[in-house]
Formats: sequence, structure tokens, C-alpha cells
Amino acid sequence: MTYCVGLRLRDGLVFMADTRTNAGIDNISVFQKLHTWAIEGERVVTVMTSGNLATTQAVISLLDERMKAPSERSPGLLEAPSMFQVARMVGETLREVIAENKAGGQEAQNRFNATLIVGGQIRGSQPRLFMVYPEGNFVEAGDDTPFFQIGETKYGRPIIVRAYRPDMSFEEAARLLLVSFDSTIKANLSVGPPIDLQVYEKDSFHVGVVRRFEANDPLLAEISKSWGEALSLALESLPLPALSDEVLEAG
Amino acid sequence: MTYCVGLRLRDGLVFMADTRTNAGIDNISVFQKLHTWAIEGERVVTVMTSGNLATTQAVISLLDERMKAPSERSPGLLEAPSMFQVARMVGETLREVIAENKAGGQEAQNRFNATLIVGGQIRGSQPRLFMVYPEGNFVEAGDDTPFFQIGETKYGRPIIVRAYRPDMSFEEAARLLLVSFDSTIKANLSVGPPIDLQVYEKDSFHVGVVRRFEANDPLLAEISKSWGEALSLALESLPLPALSDEVLEAG
Repeated sequence: MTYCVGLRLRDGLVFMADTRTNAGIDNISVFQKLHTWAIEGERVVTVMTSGNLATTQAVISLLDERMKAPSERSPGLLEAPSMFQVARMVGETLREVIAENKAGGQEAQNRFNATLIVGGQIRGSQPRLFMVYPEGNFVEAGDDTPFFQIGETKYGRPIIVRAYRPDMSFEEAARLLLVSFDSTIKANLSVGPPIDLQVYEKDSFHVGVVRRFEANDPLLAEISKSWGEALSLALESLPLPALSDEVLEAG
Repeated sequence: MTYCVGLRLRDGLVFMADTRTNAGIDNISVFQKLHTWAIEGERVVTVMTSGNLATTQAVISLLDERMKAPSERSPGLLEAPSMFQVARMVGETLREVIAENKAGGQEAQNRFNATLIVGGQIRGSQPRLFMVYPEGNFVEAGDDTPFFQIGETKYGRPIIVRAYRPDMSFEEAARLLLVSFDSTIKANLSVGPPIDLQVYEKDSFHVGVVRRFEANDPLLAEISKSWGEALSLALESLPLPALSDEVLEAG
């Protein structure tokens, strides 16, 4: 499994992805799931991947190759006129890879599927964030749905739903996502560090902060520990249901 | 879907279940999923159900009927000599119902499946808590795994993993579970109030506190609101990742 989140903030975009892949529980590896391409001063495009690793690696490799070989039929991500066209291109590449594997090889139903998050900005328009489905179609984040999660999304969702604000600073957003990842990692073996972070600052047209949190990163440990303590305090601040009389009655 | 949790505490057992069932999103109903039988002063048995509603209702009805008709081949829950035998009886009834539907009707693979939580105490032994699988077999909670969840379990799991303590009071446990339910309800439409709570106090051999929290219960609203605020404060107490220099650099 995998866990990736893309957040749309007033000041830009924040991406976070784990790096664990597993084919069964005895075949666990580290693969990067966060990929960024940029033309400094003109565009930055980030893609995060979840799903079948062969599929997502093929998609990333194809996107990469087509950028470098402009003679290819389809223009590369770095030539697309808009983020909408970038998302379309990524969706088409994804559909193409899935269809190829289905046609050529063994019957495998949905097993080659993958879902992607695509975000970035091209000079002349706003930053945009998309979620691309295995069928190649996609949806865009807006004010009402300002973030996308892919992979093992449930454990880490409640805290984002509660604490996300569009005017968060990048640091606050990174902290929120680290907490969301910590909750997921604590509950599910298929998501694990290192955790990759990328921050894109609106109108910078520059790759911005790229940071990898290794398993032994002191900040990860600190956040995990402090969060446990802070949650206990938070719980204690809530009202207790009144059960005592009835329980005494039962004694 | 459904969300039910059974907690094993030093002082007894706490059960909580939602009441929403849905067959598609336009067919939502309220059904009780928490059922208790008791012989005052001798035994208390609680069963919570998730999965196919026809299956779980048939299981509960069969268990009920067999208790009242002692001439039936299999002795009822109220005659079983131990909680282990109670869990076996529940498991057999569940397997029987699933098998009947499979054999008689249309092909439906796993669609008649259900998973149950069974807990209680019989005079002469300790309180025990089990999770019963569709195959009829079951596992028991112990010191290392002191709680079971069934249904839509992921959203509400991180807070229980973090905050559960075996020496919690019943009030603290009920509050923890209400928070876990609130996180789930906020994230997933298939889980909803009213929420049923039952507390069994060790060695009381008495049904104890039974309480239903309706959707408009002021405590539910208060816990939901306070939890949102407390979480934000908890987040703010954590260290921020240092990104600012790099972000400035990017500007």
C-alpha cells in the first residue's frame, strides 16, 4: 500500500508521500512515489503515485522519456499549455500502461491499477491540483475539496478534515501532514518512512522545499511522541459522559 | 457499513455500536446492532453485529429463539457453561445462517457475510471478549490486543491505539469511544447515530449502563465541537518542521 496527500493552500501546494511498497508482507521495499519536473521560472509539475508499482514506474518513465524526446507523438509535460492538459497527459499515459498490461499478459482484472495525484503551476495561471483515476479521467481540487489522498487514506483522514485551513503556513501544513502520516504508520504496516515532502510556493515557478524524513529523523520521533501526549491531554479536556450513578446502581 | 467497538478494561467491558445500515446510499435505516442477554446475578452476554443485515438479524433471532425453546437441539446462550462455549455457539449459528443463504439462493460469494463481537461474563470466570468471523471461528482479546473493532474500523482506530489504557474508568472509555465514533462519522456517511453504549462492570452479573446517544444528544455535539478545538490546540503544541529558509530561498 501507500499513503500520499496533496494539499491546496492559499499560498501554494504541499505534497507528502511515503515510500514503502510491498508485494506481500515479506517483500517490502523503498521506492520514491513523489516526482517533480520543472522549467525554472516557468512551470513546476509534481506527480505522486499509488497502486501497482510496475504500472506507476512505467507511467513515470514514459512521462520522463517523452519530455526528453520531443519527436515523440505526444508532447511532453513540459510543453503542455496548461495544468489541465498536464493532467490529461498523465491520465492518458496511465490508461495506456494499464491497457497494455491487460492486453498483452495474463488476465489480472484490476491488479495493474494505479491512482495518481498531479499538481503544479504553469506561468499565466493559478496552481492546480488533480486526482487521476486508473481510467485516465480526473477531478480537480477546489475550495470545497481542497486536498486529495491516495492509498491507505482512512487512518489519517480525520485529522486533516478537522485541522486543515486554506491559510495555513507551509510549516503548519507539513506538521499536519506529518501527524496524519504518523497516525497511518502507527495503524498500518503497509505505510512507512522515509516520508517525502515537497512544498510549492505559489508564483515561485521554482521546485521549492524538498525534504525527506528518514525513519530515524528526530522530528518524526518528536512529533509522534508529542502527538500521543497532546492527544491524551485533548481527550482529558472533553466532558465525561455521566454514567456513574447507573454503574453504582449496577454494583 | 457499521462501526462497533468492544473494549476490555481492568474493571469490565465497554461496548459501543452505531445503528446505521445501508443498502446503497438511498436506502439508509436505523437498526440496533448491540444485543444483550442476561440471567441477573449469573451471566451477561453482549453481541454486536456488522455485515449483511439479513444475516445478522437471522443470527440474533436464532440465538434468541433457542434460548427460549430449551427443547431445541443446541442449548441456548444462557445455558452454555463458559464464554468460550458462548462464542462457539454464536460462531456456529453465524456459519449456519451464511451457509443456508448460500446453498438455497443465488450465487452471492461473500455478500451474506458478517462479523460479530461477543463479550460478557459467566459466574465462576473472568469477563471475556471475542471477535467471531464469518467462518464461525473466533479470536479472543488479551492484554496485548485489548479491543476489537468491526465494520468501518480505520478512521476511528488511531485515537484508540493512542489513548486506550486498561485502567481507564468506564466514563473515560465511553468518552474515548465517542471520540472514535465522531471521527468515523465525520469521515464516512455509512456510519451514523444513534450510538448505543453498554457498560458491563466486572463481577456485577448485571446488565449495567445501557445508553443511547441520539443524533441531537447535547453531549455528542459538545464532544464533537470540543474535540475539534482540542485537536487544533494539540497540533499547535507540536514542533514545526523548519522549512522557512528553504522556502525563502525559493522566492
